[in-house]
Order: sequence, then C-alpha cells, then structure tokens
Amino acid sequence: MNAIAEDLATALGAAKVATDAEALQARRHDYWALSHIRDLAGAGAPRPACIVRPAGAADVAEVLRIARERGVPVIPFGLGSGVVGGIVASPEAVVLDLGSVAAVRWIDEDNLLACFEAGIRGADAEDAVAARGLTIGHWPQSVALSSVGGWAATRASGQFSTGYGNIEDIVQAIEAVLPSGEVVTLGKGARASAGPDLRALFLGSEGTLGVITAVTLSLRRAPEARSLAAFAAADMDAGFAFQRRLIQAGWRPPVVRQYDARESRRHGGDSGASLLLLVHEGPAALVQAQAPAVAELAADSGLEARDGALVETWLAHRNDVPPWEAILSRHIVADTVEVSAGWTDIGKIYRDAVASLSEAPGCLVASAHSSHAYRSGLNLYFTFAFQTEGPAAMERVYLDAWRRIMEATIAHGGGVSHHHGIGRVRRPWLEAELGAGGLALLRRIKAALDPDGIMNPGVLLP
Amino acid sequence: MNAIAEDLATALGAAKVATDAEALQARRHDYWALSHIRDLAGAGAPRPACIVRPAGAADVAEVLRIARERGVPVIPFGLGSGVVGGIVASPEAVVLDLGSVAAVRWIDEDNLLACFEAGIRGADAEDAVAARGLTIGHWPQSVALSSVGGWAATRASGQFSTGYGNIEDIVQAIEAVLPSGEVVTLGKGARASAGPDLRALFLGSEGTLGVITAVTLSLRRAPEARSLAAFAAADMDAGFAFQRRLIQAGWRPPVVRQYDARESRRHGGDSGASLLLLVHEGPAALVQAQAPAVAELAADSGLEARDGALVETWLAHRNDVPPWEAILSRHIVADTVEVSAGWTDIGKIYRDAVASLSEAPGCLVASAHSSHAYRSGLNLYFTFAFQTEGPAAMERVYLDAWRRIMEATIAHGGGVSHHHGIGRVRRPWLEAELGAGGLALLRRIKAALDPDGIMNPGVLLP
Repeated sequence: MNAIAEDLATALGAAKVATDAEALQARRHDYWALSHIRDLAGAGAPRPACIVRPAGAADVAEVLRIARERGVPVIPFGLGSGVVGGIVASPEAVVLDLGSVAAVRWIDEDNLLACFEAGIRGADAEDAVAARGLTIGHWPQSVALSSVGGWAATRASGQFSTGYGNIEDIVQAIEAVLPSGEVVTLGKGARASAGPDLRALFLGSEGTLGVITAVTLSLRRAPEARSLAAFAAADMDAGFAFQRRLIQAGWRPPVVRQYDARESRRHGGDSGASLLLLVHEGPAALVQAQAPAVAELAADSGLEARDGALVETWLAHRNDVPPWEAILSRHIVADTVEVSAGWTDIGKIYRDAVASLSEAPGCLVASAHSSHAYRSGLNLYFTFAFQTEGPAAMERVYLDAWRRIMEATIAHGGGVSHHHGIGRVRRPWLEAELGAGGLALLRRIKAALDPDGIMNPGVLLP
Repeated sequence: MNAIAEDLATALGAAKVATDAEALQARRHDYWALSHIRDLAGAGAPRPACIVRPAGAADVAEVLRIARERGVPVIPFGLGSGVVGGIVASPEAVVLDLGSVAAVRWIDEDNLLACFEAGIRGADAEDAVAARGLTIGHWPQSVALSSVGGWAATRASGQFSTGYGNIEDIVQAIEAVLPSGEVVTLGKGARASAGPDLRALFLGSEGTLGVITAVTLSLRRAPEARSLAAFAAADMDAGFAFQRRLIQAGWRPPVVRQYDARESRRHGGDSGASLLLLVHEGPAALVQAQAPAVAELAADSGLEARDGALVETWLAHRNDVPPWEAILSRHIVADTVEVSAGWTDIGKIYRDAVASLSEAPGCLVASAHSSHAYRSGLNLYFTFAFQTEGPAAMERVYLDAWRRIMEATIAHGGGVSHHHGIGRVRRPWLEAELGAGGLALLRRIKAALDPDGIMNPGVLLP
C-alpha cells in the first residue's frame, strides 16, 4: 500500500480503501472514446493510487481533508458512463468511488420528491419511484449506466427533456462536500429568491468544485396517457421549421426527435427524407388535444405522417449502444458530439459540420439528429466514424473530427456542449463558450472553493 | 462636490454625475416599507455621496474601478421598486442609477429573444416585444415600476409563472460588470452543459457580486387563446388540495391564485370561502381541452365554479397598490411577505403565521393568498397591517410582524423568500434558508468576486 492509501485506510477503515490491481484497473477512466483508443494504442491512463469507497458525506469529508493535507488529487467517480474524459486517473490520485453511496434515502409521494444518494444507478432510482406510480422523467441514454449524482455533476439531459426539462429543472436539492470538508445542503423549497442559486455551482461542476453526495429530485406522477407520432420531412430544414412552429406555438411534447437522411434509414424512415419521432404524454384530455393539433401543424408544414410504430421501435431500442471494443478493434474511431444553437443557425451548423467531417480522409459516418427543442433553438447530436490506419493514427483522427464539429458550431454562434459536459475533450473550446471574462470568473470560483486545486484537476478548465 | 463625485465626474464627464439635493434625496432608498417608516420617524436613510448615470457597461466598469481604488461602496439602483431593503444609501456611497441604461438592443423574432439594457422599465420592454406579437410572459405586480435588470438581480417571479416560469426560466443571457471591472456575457445557447451555469451567480445577487448591465430574455409568441375560470373552495386546505391535484396531474395554467377568506371578499368571492382564479392560455386546442378538464377536476375536488368575470376584474386591477404615504400617515404599518413550502406544510404555515400575526396587539389585517404553484409545493403571499401608537413604535411593530411570519415558515421547513429577495429585512433568516455551510459558501463566493466588499454592503449577507 502507498502512503496515501495507508492514511485513508487508517482514517476510514481498511475495508473502504482498495489498492488491488483489478480495482485500480477498472477505475482508471470513464467511457470516453479517447481513453479506450489510448488503451488500445498502449498509452492508456495509469492506475490511480487507490480507490476509496465512502459510506457517505462524512467519509467524503475525511478523504478531502486528508487529500488537502497531502496535496493529493481526488477524482469523484460515479458509475463511469461519462463520454468526454471527466475521469482520467493519475498515479498519485485518489479515486472516490461513489458507487458505494447509493441508497434511496426517502420518497415523498405527497410533495413528489425523492432523495437519492449520489452513486445510485439511474435505472434503480427510476424503478424505486415507479413502484409508487411516479417517475423521475429523466431518461438519458445512459440511464442504466449512469448515476444520479453524475446527472447533476454533468448537467445531463434526458430523452424526454422537451416536455420534462433537463436535470436543472428536476433537481430540488443537492448535498455536497466542499474541498474544505464542509457539507452543504442547497435547495430548500420548490423555488426561492434567497441570494444566488448555489445549487448551480455543483450542477455541471464535473467534480472540480466538490463532491455531490446526495440529490433530491422533483418527481412526476406517471402520465395518464401517451400517444406516439412519426412524420417525414423533405429535408432537415423542413423538419427544423416544423419543430420551431410546434414549440413556439406553445406545445411541449416530451419527446421530439429529428434524424437526418442517414440516421432516418436506420430508424425506418423514407429514403432521403428526415424522420421525426414524437411522444405526447400527460393527462388524457391534453394528449387527445395535442396529438391531432400537432399532426395538423405537421401537415400544414408539408410533413407527411408515418406509422407511430416507428416510435415504438425507437422506445424499445433507444438505449442500445455497441461496445467500444467492437468498433475500435477494427481501427475505426467513432463518437457522438452534442451542441446547441438558435433556430436560425442550427441548419448551418448541421451542414457545415457534416460537410467538414465528410471531406476528411476515412470518413465512414457523418450524421446528426436533434433531440431537445426550446423556444429559442435546439440541439444537434452528431455521430462520426472514421476508418484509420491503426492505433497510432486513431487519436489524431479522433481529435480532428471533434475539432471540425466544434469549429462549425462556434462559427455560427452555437453552444459547444448541450448535455455531455466539457471534461477533457472540450477544454480547448470552453473559452469560446464562456468568453475570456466568463472563463476568468470560473477560475476565480474554482480558486475560492478549491484553493489547493485537488478536485479533479485537468477537467473543465483549460 | 465631494472627492468621489469629483473623481467620477473627471473620469465620466460631469453630466453623468449628480450631487444636487433632489437627485440624492430621490435615490436614498427603494420601496421598502421600513425605509418609509424611518423617513416618517425622522430617522431616514442619509443621502449618498453622489448619483452616477452610466451610459453602459464601460462606464460601470470605470465607476467600479474608481470605487475600488477609493474603497467606496457602490449601490446599483434599478428603478427602486424593491420591497426588502436592497437599497439603503450611506453618506459615502455611490449610487449607480441604471435608469440611464435602458435601451432595447435588439429583438430576434425568429429565435424569440430580446436583449434589453438593465434599466429598462419592465412595461416598456414588454411593449417593445408586444408590438411584434410577442410577450416576455413575466408579469410581476411591479411591471410598470421595476427594471428588467432588477428582475434578474432579485430572482423575480411574475403572475403568470405557473405556466411560464420564473425569471431564471426566461433569462437566456446576462451581461454583467464584475467588481474587477471585467465585463462578462454569460449564457450562449438555449441550454448548455459547459461547467456550472455562471448566470446563476447574478440571478438573485441583489447587487452584491457585480452590476447587471443587460439581459437577454427568451420570449413567447402571444398565445392564440385564453380562458378564465374562478372557483370557490370551502377553505384554504380544500383549495390547496385541488391545486396540488391540478399541477401534479400535469396541467400548467399560467395563472393559479388562491385567496383566503379575508382576501376572497375583496376579489368578489363567497363569504367565508377561498376563491381561486385561473387563467388558461396557449394554442386554442390546448385551452379548449384544459379549461373543461380543470373545471371537472375542480368539481371532483369539491370546488364550485364561479363567474370568470372575477378574473377579468383581477386582471384589470392586479397591479394597483396604494402608496405607502396613505397608510403610514395613519400610523399603520403594513407589508407583504412571500414564502414557499411543500404541499404538506403550506397549510400549517398559513395557519400558524396568520394566528401569530392576529394575536399581536393592533393587528388589522393578517391574510394570504398563493400565486405560484409547483409540482412540489407552492408559495404564500401574506399581507399584514397593524395600527400603531405612532412613528416611534412603527419600526418595532413592523419587524415583529416579519419575525412572526419568518418563524412560522421556518418551523415547518418552508423557504423564507419566494420572489422578493433577502435585501436587509430577511438577513436574519438567510442562514435558516442556506444552512451554515451554504452561508459560508456564499461568503466565499462574495469574497472571491468582491474582495474589497464595495458591492452593495449590508444587503443579503447577515
């Protein structure tokens, strides 16, 4: 055992500190494609000094106290489903494995609230409330792989966000341990005007400002009715125009997805057209009014109705993701990149990014869909895949593909990240997002909360 | 001219700096009842050192630079409609009168965005977008008296919030000048996952962390249809139970208000009953479905329908407020106090606060209504009035009434401020809201952004 592991074992008990090779190996990094590419190239992330499995906030506070004393970095690890490099170990780092802090603390059926410890698997949290006829309504594709604390730490979105909001609209309270060791519980009522909303410091903090140990979520009652609808638009612009009318008219279907021609084929859409999939949910009278009104709006926008069964198929398979190994072993690099922009810019970003990816050598796939719509704009979720010459070339090709999407987004004033976060892969473009002043402000906040810089160094801040 | 005024006049031009008695007198404080009570008692707030009327962010940055050098406090002043003591001058302070920064920068009808300078009057901002068939959808009672920057700085709510959200749901971007003189523009897209949401630092900051100079708001298209509905509930609990069912079923009428028996009488309700006023708005098909479904839910909850014309009357008179002078000159102290709580606690807070106020000597009015409903709870908006023996007694009676409402709220786990902010009047209870750790965190943020403590000292932090 190394020195920091010994200190932690003395303080917390040996059962909570692991230094065996298997444990260290499994917590070196998250699901970021580049970490897997580097493993394949023989340049993978090192093992951390140790893994700590805290029992709760008190243990976390103790870990942070000891880490500060020793000047040792601490990397909070939820369930490892992050895809932007939020977790990459270093040999001196302590990985704080929050999978050990995963209880359902309470469910309040009257006030529609549930308090979860940070490491609970999203699907387990949803199951716990579903047993009472409730739903969290937050359905990231990673719901079976990601933790509730991770949702908060990355400012996640779910597939039903257009109606139900993103994680910041669902979080009622956050319990977090500051690098100082103080435990704070932020968020008292359904809404407050009591100084700046301090919960916002931890939503999206990606482990750099403290450790989220519990999250209270505002629930929904399971909807009374559901109706599915699919439409074909002549092209992406025609579909975007319909989405804009739909949202700006005041309708909010929980799910509104639009695939480009390439992705439409995979989801049963017409050849060459853009497929839209919608889910209406809510009180029966609302769904009965909304579904036909939206269908009429679609027809008036030049879209054609398609079989709602296409939505059933998507619902059944929406979280299927092929393992990296299957792709990388063929020396193909691939990833998904989500951005957002105003309605008037989103089509330009789509075209420019796909064109730029397509002209790069080895391009196999350059496609996109939208999945989260707002009054002022929507997101795009790009998928790229490139055939490379082998492990030595993969990192370069991968980073070049990312650069192409980021630059097309920034050129048209878009936001560089819709819901996966900054991690390591987007650090070069955070300044384009926040401006020099905003970045300086974030650094000042970081220095105020984590003066020793022990919290997840290398992430978020360039 | 005093020294700081001379420095500022040299830097900005004399036309932007006022030291005449009339200007100083008019900017000593905002609309807080206690400031008016103190004026009446001959112990009013002093005149500040000077009033600065900046032309924009560059002037504000220059004022903050000079104020930091001289160690002089700066008090950002919107339009002075605040009611919790966010503005009380001191003799050495510079009052930054943002009424001079009040342009409509641009309106984007495609992306439903409008950028306003901070000092623009809310009603003028609404008029500017209404001329294009759009609406901000933010209707505080003060809409004709308050500024858009003030809405952001206090985390304001409007009367249509149950459907349209509070100011944090409407703000897309904030331009602010930090005490360091840096100008930041925060908020790029409709939604982002790019580190903590730094806009949240300024929403609710009450002038203590910097100066908001412009705000971009996300607009709505004017709704296609509107329907008004009124109901009578046997008592407050019966009305709360109906509101809870309504919101938790997934309906979101923009306006849901519920008055206790005393306030119901003033709004044309039945004697002894609780009156509810609802506004449905949105696409015609939505309103046509929602209005009857909600009426059915009301009947099923034991409520009786009343004439929708009661809502018309409220709409016509909703922003009428008697001037303080008319009340205070009769040695009556009065105020409104808004709090929030979960559904299971709101009735207890209502009863305990009204009982506590009623048993205090001189109580003329102790009543409440709710006006903002959420899945997890709702707000209460108390009104109190006390007959006092004269100016010497008024401050004590006023503060005692506040204490009674705050203590009843805290005893049942409620939030101490729903939408007016902390200012000076709620400072003693901010720790109950944030916890000791949360308060320490806020102090750390304050020290990081405003190390010299020049920004609106005495406000927010106890």
